[in-house]
Amino acid sequence: MISERMERQLDFIVAIDALKDITRQSITTGSRRQENDAEHSWHLAVMAMILSEYAEDQTIDIAKVISMVLIHDLVEIYAGDTYCYDEKGYEDKAEREQEAADRLFNMLPEDQAQRMMSLWQEFEEMETKEAAFAATLDRFQPLLLNYNTEGHTWQRPGITSEKVLKRTEIAKEKVPQLYVYIERLIQRSIERGMLKP
Amino acid sequence: MISERMERQLDFIVAIDALKDITRQSITTGSRRQENDAEHSWHLAVMAMILSEYAEDQTIDIAKVISMVLIHDLVEIYAGDTYCYDEKGYEDKAEREQEAADRLFNMLPEDQAQRMMSLWQEFEEMETKEAAFAATLDRFQPLLLNYNTEGHTWQRPGITSEKVLKRTEIAKEKVPQLYVYIERLIQRSIERGMLKP
Repeated sequence: MISERMERQLDFIVAIDALKDITRQSITTGSRRQENDAEHSWHLAVMAMILSEYAEDQTIDIAKVISMVLIHDLVEIYAGDTYCYDEKGYEDKAEREQEAADRLFNMLPEDQAQRMMSLWQEFEEMETKEAAFAATLDRFQPLLLNYNTEGHTWQRPGITSEKVLKRTEIAKEKVPQLYVYIERLIQRSIERGMLKP
Repeated sequence: MISERMERQLDFIVAIDALKDITRQSITTGSRRQENDAEHSWHLAVMAMILSEYAEDQTIDIAKVISMVLIHDLVEIYAGDTYCYDEKGYEDKAEREQEAADRLFNMLPEDQAQRMMSLWQEFEEMETKEAAFAATLDRFQPLLLNYNTEGHTWQRPGITSEKVLKRTEIAKEKVPQLYVYIERLIQRSIERGMLKP
């Protein structure tokens, strides 16, 4: 009575519950504990709903952006989170994540596995307007959390405003009005001693 | 240079970070800690992506379902989570949540506040095909978590399979194939002693 297709879909839905245990470097503004990937993905999806009007290319498919951010970190269930300023971790990040994607997405029926793989690859390549907007949100959201938690992850050795600004550079061309906001936020963070110039 | 509109949108985006601290009754399958509303909303949104083919009415707008589940619990930032079998909590739930919606959504520019309010009200009324599908996911997801955590919240006094099944009744008409899965899951839960008959 229950198809193999549905069994695979539900097994996948249970498996991805593990995303709630993949912690990130940013902390939440209230309880000040490390945020996890599921919460982060939810936050990006709502941000996409609210901020779509600032995409430079207004032919953007915002439903696609939302789907993309909802699944963009799933590979970390097997590959783990790589901190954005961890140069060593970045050396084998692509390989680790591709293996994880193969393992995780192939739990799904083939058509859905392919759709997930393709959405995730599009996000990683950062070339389409939807991927650029999703990447902007992904890089901007930790800034917002840092700014509202006295620069929590910026306190580590080696983090400077230059590095932080460089990481959000994609916004400059693709979401220019948001980039102005980001520049102001970084400027204020420096002035308030949360971020090294 | 930064519009009042954008300031309001970003203030809202920071304010809703609080959803990550609203805990629910269900526990996660890995770390076995209480799930929070942000994670739950993310889970429902991915479930909508995967399970849309089972909606009885295939003219369903799944992007709308996704938007709906992403924001459906935001009012709990001010109104708190009401446990689904808490009869006393349900007495003033509607009033508390309406006040919370007015307070929270009106942080946004008027057009977006109205859109959020309308999406949330549509979800609450459970009448459109999108709202019925969203409600089905919202009621089914805790079942999946309970089933995979030895019936965690079902161990409380007064919870029976009849109550659990009744709460997912909306699936019977609107997502019938999923209802078959739910019935089997409840049957197995009884057999395994996780749920009282």
